[in-house]
Amino acid sequence: MSNHFADRLRAAIQAKGAPICAGIDPRPEWVPQSFYDGAFEEFGRTQKAVRFAVRNFCIEVLRLVAPHVPAVKPQAAFFESLGPGGWADFAAVCAEARRLGLIVIADVKRGDIGSTAEAYAQALFGNREIKGVTIESAHVDCATVNPYLGADSVVPFVAAARENGAGLYVLARTSNKGSAEFQQLELKQGGALVDEVARKIDAWGAESLGECGYSDVGAVVGATHVDAAKHLRRLMPRTPFLVPGWGAQGGHAAAVRACFDAKGQGAIVNSSRGVMHAYAAGPLKEHGEAHWKEAVTQAVKIFHQEIAQLAAEPA
Amino acid sequence: MSNHFADRLRAAIQAKGAPICAGIDPRPEWVPQSFYDGAFEEFGRTQKAVRFAVRNFCIEVLRLVAPHVPAVKPQAAFFESLGPGGWADFAAVCAEARRLGLIVIADVKRGDIGSTAEAYAQALFGNREIKGVTIESAHVDCATVNPYLGADSVVPFVAAARENGAGLYVLARTSNKGSAEFQQLELKQGGALVDEVARKIDAWGAESLGECGYSDVGAVVGATHVDAAKHLRRLMPRTPFLVPGWGAQGGHAAAVRACFDAKGQGAIVNSSRGVMHAYAAGPLKEHGEAHWKEAVTQAVKIFHQEIAQLAAEPA
Repeated sequence: MSNHFADRLRAAIQAKGAPICAGIDPRPEWVPQSFYDGAFEEFGRTQKAVRFAVRNFCIEVLRLVAPHVPAVKPQAAFFESLGPGGWADFAAVCAEARRLGLIVIADVKRGDIGSTAEAYAQALFGNREIKGVTIESAHVDCATVNPYLGADSVVPFVAAARENGAGLYVLARTSNKGSAEFQQLELKQGGALVDEVARKIDAWGAESLGECGYSDVGAVVGATHVDAAKHLRRLMPRTPFLVPGWGAQGGHAAAVRACFDAKGQGAIVNSSRGVMHAYAAGPLKEHGEAHWKEAVTQAVKIFHQEIAQLAAEPA
Repeated sequence: MSNHFADRLRAAIQAKGAPICAGIDPRPEWVPQSFYDGAFEEFGRTQKAVRFAVRNFCIEVLRLVAPHVPAVKPQAAFFESLGPGGWADFAAVCAEARRLGLIVIADVKRGDIGSTAEAYAQALFGNREIKGVTIESAHVDCATVNPYLGADSVVPFVAAARENGAGLYVLARTSNKGSAEFQQLELKQGGALVDEVARKIDAWGAESLGECGYSDVGAVVGATHVDAAKHLRRLMPRTPFLVPGWGAQGGHAAAVRACFDAKGQGAIVNSSRGVMHAYAAGPLKEHGEAHWKEAVTQAVKIFHQEIAQLAAEPA
């Protein structure tokens, strides 16, 4: 099998039957109390116990969703907010996801220049040697990056990812309410800022296409407007899309559909709180905290069915 | 004394006599060998030893520069790249800098939305409680953020920083070669993207001005073009500037001068490798590794003199 990111992602999607991704955004207030109870018993009311509870919840969620999803997207912010040890939990969750055969997309939205970008990339992809000592990265398959600083902030990530058979998703049009504020500013040359970002994303990926015809440089494209999605699909015909915002952020079916190509390929749709925190937030609340596992399993199955169907009926 | 970030920064600058900031960007290849030798002896050839060496070098650098600089800017990327434990070293370096009375600017360039932005901010500012357990942040005085996602990615950082008497520097015009690629794209409405970002930065900071007249929402403005710096100073009259690129990135004296107001205030200039790695990179190489401390001390004194003089003769 090809080691190219786009081919590995394609194979994983085929194996699981739907182009979906479960976001791992552990909000401490929505981690079931039983995890805290066990951890406090073992470690007392300590920061270590809180981290232990959150990490174990994430790992149980991974095991529940693994049969249904090809990929997961751990959100670094929620791990960093657990204190200085949080990155170790992030790495542990990534490792468990890999062990379960899942494609791991690190949602880090990093962006910096030159050797600083290289340092961020070293934290994510492959190993490095310092004075003969091996420093382990989080070994993820893919990461999100921010393009505001320009090519010299993206290209070092592209190089590091490519060297490790990994990929990137560059922020193009995000799914938040305020995303238009800068991203949709109209340019004198015609089109909007996001169009120029899209053209660059297409170019950065052009040198490395997988056997499936897609590149290892993807784009984050929020599914909030159908016309915007169609337009970006046209501007980036070889670019894999990561589509956030299904569920909580108001993603629309028609807009999600427009992110796929005519064969229903080229995109993966993410749901975060709607799956992982299904018992706490969303339509499956009736399960209650005691049945949080059933809520996660039911949520991921519904998500799987919805997106598999959307992808099977492309625009 | 006012607890407002801009006032605290002003007081620190007055106490040290120059508006300068020492970047803490530990490149493992430029950490003097003696740090590794000691660490390998104590911990063997392990990741822990490498982290120990890098952290101790940073802490010694802090002690050398503390008499001369009001602020330091640790770069998160270089700590993340030391493996999952690297964030603990980042936090330890921030703690030592605070203990030395330095203003700590976390160069993290984070950017995400809503509750995710809040989680990133929790990792940086103040403490939080989870189930009655206190989770310590890195307790920094300021952080850099990326505006590409729009106001809903910046405002949660503003709120968290403000609540803790801290501040932000939002990326406006960065100092890298490729910064113009998106930042200087001309808009249909007139001006460039960076101008629109600048107007928003000014507005985000308008609600909270310190006694010194400056806000707690700053801007990163690279000193590469004098006209660009003058223009951005006009667009953001109340905004403190963080000016990277002195030395290594080719900052020009006239452009740096244009970042200050008529009283020589409102900006702080950063130098990273030129100070911390003075023995390894730059004009003080003749000191050699054995005399790295002398190189750092001499470099920071020259930097102090150069910028104090520039600020005393504003444009």
